[in-house]
Amino acid sequence: MVSMTREIGVTELVLRDAHQSLMATRMALEDMVDACADIDAAGYWSVECWGGATFDACIRFLNEDPWERLRTFRELMPNSRLQMLLRGQNLLGYRHYEDMVVEKFVEKSAENGMDVFRVFDALNDPRNMAQAMAAVAKTGKHAQGTICYTISPLHTVEGYVRLAGQLLDMGAQSIALKDMAALLQPQPAYDIVRGIKETYGEDVQINVHCHSTTGVTLVSLMKAIEAGADVIDTAISSMSLGPGHNPTESMVAMLEGTGYETGLDMDRLLKIRDHFAEVRPKYAEFESATLVDTDIFSSQIPGGMLSNMESQLKAQGAGDRIREVMEEVPLVKADAGHPPLVTPSSQIVGTQAVFNVLMGRYKVLTGEFADLMLGYYGECIGERNPEIVEVAKTQTKKEPITERPADLLKPEWDSLVAEAGELEGFNGSDEDVLTHAMFPAVAENFFTTRPEGPKNVGKTAEQLEKEAARAKGQDKAVREPIKYQVTVDGKTRSVSVEPA
Amino acid sequence: MVSMTREIGVTELVLRDAHQSLMATRMALEDMVDACADIDAAGYWSVECWGGATFDACIRFLNEDPWERLRTFRELMPNSRLQMLLRGQNLLGYRHYEDMVVEKFVEKSAENGMDVFRVFDALNDPRNMAQAMAAVAKTGKHAQGTICYTISPLHTVEGYVRLAGQLLDMGAQSIALKDMAALLQPQPAYDIVRGIKETYGEDVQINVHCHSTTGVTLVSLMKAIEAGADVIDTAISSMSLGPGHNPTESMVAMLEGTGYETGLDMDRLLKIRDHFAEVRPKYAEFESATLVDTDIFSSQIPGGMLSNMESQLKAQGAGDRIREVMEEVPLVKADAGHPPLVTPSSQIVGTQAVFNVLMGRYKVLTGEFADLMLGYYGECIGERNPEIVEVAKTQTKKEPITERPADLLKPEWDSLVAEAGELEGFNGSDEDVLTHAMFPAVAENFFTTRPEGPKNVGKTAEQLEKEAARAKGQDKAVREPIKYQVTVDGKTRSVSVEPA
Repeated sequence: MVSMTREIGVTELVLRDAHQSLMATRMALEDMVDACADIDAAGYWSVECWGGATFDACIRFLNEDPWERLRTFRELMPNSRLQMLLRGQNLLGYRHYEDMVVEKFVEKSAENGMDVFRVFDALNDPRNMAQAMAAVAKTGKHAQGTICYTISPLHTVEGYVRLAGQLLDMGAQSIALKDMAALLQPQPAYDIVRGIKETYGEDVQINVHCHSTTGVTLVSLMKAIEAGADVIDTAISSMSLGPGHNPTESMVAMLEGTGYETGLDMDRLLKIRDHFAEVRPKYAEFESATLVDTDIFSSQIPGGMLSNMESQLKAQGAGDRIREVMEEVPLVKADAGHPPLVTPSSQIVGTQAVFNVLMGRYKVLTGEFADLMLGYYGECIGERNPEIVEVAKTQTKKEPITERPADLLKPEWDSLVAEAGELEGFNGSDEDVLTHAMFPAVAENFFTTRPEGPKNVGKTAEQLEKEAARAKGQDKAVREPIKYQVTVDGKTRSVSVEPA
Repeated sequence: MVSMTREIGVTELVLRDAHQSLMATRMALEDMVDACADIDAAGYWSVECWGGATFDACIRFLNEDPWERLRTFRELMPNSRLQMLLRGQNLLGYRHYEDMVVEKFVEKSAENGMDVFRVFDALNDPRNMAQAMAAVAKTGKHAQGTICYTISPLHTVEGYVRLAGQLLDMGAQSIALKDMAALLQPQPAYDIVRGIKETYGEDVQINVHCHSTTGVTLVSLMKAIEAGADVIDTAISSMSLGPGHNPTESMVAMLEGTGYETGLDMDRLLKIRDHFAEVRPKYAEFESATLVDTDIFSSQIPGGMLSNMESQLKAQGAGDRIREVMEEVPLVKADAGHPPLVTPSSQIVGTQAVFNVLMGRYKVLTGEFADLMLGYYGECIGERNPEIVEVAKTQTKKEPITERPADLLKPEWDSLVAEAGELEGFNGSDEDVLTHAMFPAVAENFFTTRPEGPKNVGKTAEQLEKEAARAKGQDKAVREPIKYQVTVDGKTRSVSVEPA
């Protein structure tokens, strides 16, 4: 029926977003290295392996140098495009950095082996992505501009297509449609991809990234492919589903006979799968029980954000008021101009909603929410509620801004170098300066413990066996009389034990 | 974009196949009744709630009269089409029944409240479905003819379309495309549905049933809908995925904006979901850990069949020979004429493959495999290997048959009535006769224990709490004094044990 085939590229997520979404980014490098040869040879378009959370978890929990991790990947996967997720002007941290720091970071990442930089901004403000994109272009690496997908009364297919155009104007070599909350339904997936292709040309490369939380997004990937998407993101099946991603092998099966093909080597995929099937149970304690959650389609509140708000409420002894907070979220989101709800905007909006319910609407603003209202995170798609902007001004004595937030920053590279130089264990490299710059609260401790080497927080095979044995015996305890031969002081007696 | 909408009917599986696939059919009626009002009002095309395994589990494990279960559903869901899965001439049992028994069973099922009979045969032999379909037609209820989907060198889209035609000729009011092994990929799903519609008319109703084991079949449902499928089967999300089915709410989200709509009441769905989210953990011990399994695309061996063969091998101390058996399966399947691998053909082929590996190829045939080779289960799509047919003849001293297997049966209703009449606890009803006829080995015991009433094999809320507490305290072992009765040399003493 279909006589022409079109090759679909695949980005494998197992080394970054898969374990970030499934097991709080806890996977140690040593649990990945044995799969790298197969990943390198499987035929992926790219291998995502680095990002803010991996960097953070490396130095916070795993005593691993994230730069060393990157170099290891580079060495083990010489034939692959290595890909990272970059928070635009925030780099991998939680604040805006001055442009020269952005440039340095991109330069060093490229030098250490990074090939594809997926650059995004939580508010979809292109100005927060421009500098990072330019820096990537300067290194000759691949700069991918990102659309964070969300749903609101203001978000439309046309708006997303327009944003793609802005990213292309900024030099994006490809466009990523990033659906971090599994909200992207098949029809909008089709419409956005088609819209971009029809507006800017069929040869614009589009990568589509979906989580699987809502159970529907493999269909969205299919529709995106039918609309012309070039590369899609999946995770090997043994590290897929739930809050993670669609399974790579299922996607291959999906395309069979359709005229689209991935060219992936199935034997390699099975080896990768088997490797991570062994690894996953080691990190079971970090996994959530979520299999599928379609609540977000009605509530518009991502699962992670909901649990955050719940624990905030509980800490205040107000756990029973979650319904009120859930109803407050859309109002706060609208007042803020409808930001996508993704780190950090999800936390900022969520916490303010909790404050509103507990203390009265906008009686107290968090510092972050005030900054959001005053433009210090950038621009949103919608207008901010002027009344709340006034409250923010009064409360913080700060003025609203309209310029790019990073334009307010003074050069800071030299002082970052100086600060890092003071730290025990600092190795003198620009990489260490950047680690300190992005995670100042954690880097210091990491530099001192680094010589001890990586720490694997997963369970060992022995621990897992022991646990399994214990679980099996759990129900047995002493239920029926058990007979023992007991020897005390040389005398052997027959002893029977039963519950009292 | 799409201006016309088409309504897609939905069959909810939670009351039958969902708990059959996820928790070995163990769910007690009392864990379903509170959801029935919402199910009845949600707007489903039908509610699947009865079948061979439910019937079997009811009398074997739950001390529940399956007929009473059916009557309860009828009463609690007066506005719904109740649907069952019927194994053609096998009814709900494992052998062929004489035509009058088939007629009686269908008549009694209809009388007790059944509306839609999905009639299938494991070999896709229409002759094994004809009598059941005719019996349904006689009651005025809905007779659905079924295609069991499988993959083999002989199975083609055209062949499936042809089979649909045979079923329609036999009076099928709709065609079910049944994918019990999650093998149905998107393109063949599209092609088969389109082929049936184009050949027999767009108004032929097609229902599509997929499992979710391979992670790809929600896409197959989408493609089937695009090809014109009228009704699709899903399970409420809290009872979905893994070896079960695609989540109902995800499917609703899938169709949003596409021009297809289910008309389902989302508020009701959420209530149904919440109900079963509470129930599912009670049966956790019956669940398998399978999240997604794409092996079947290469091995062609359904997961359940594989684990069966593994345990057979282990019982023979040959657990290490599973690879050999897996390679033997396709040969045995081909020799048998490529039957779909579904109960009972999967067991028959699998066990013969084990025998071949352990004892030499076809040195010993199982009785069932010999019968399969001699035509006693009906006809397959392919020719049977004449050499093995000879082996079967020699070994069993039976002749191959070409007629419909049930044509060899003598009237048996009267003797079944007589037999049942001998049993303690028999209540004199035709329903009890049928229960005995289908599960002779189990019915006798069930009839005597029936007065004790239903037995819920799920855990109670208290047990679950206790377990959670125990899991939490798992590492604590002996923390506080524990009291035992200890008998030493015949003398019983009270002993208290605590950490030294």
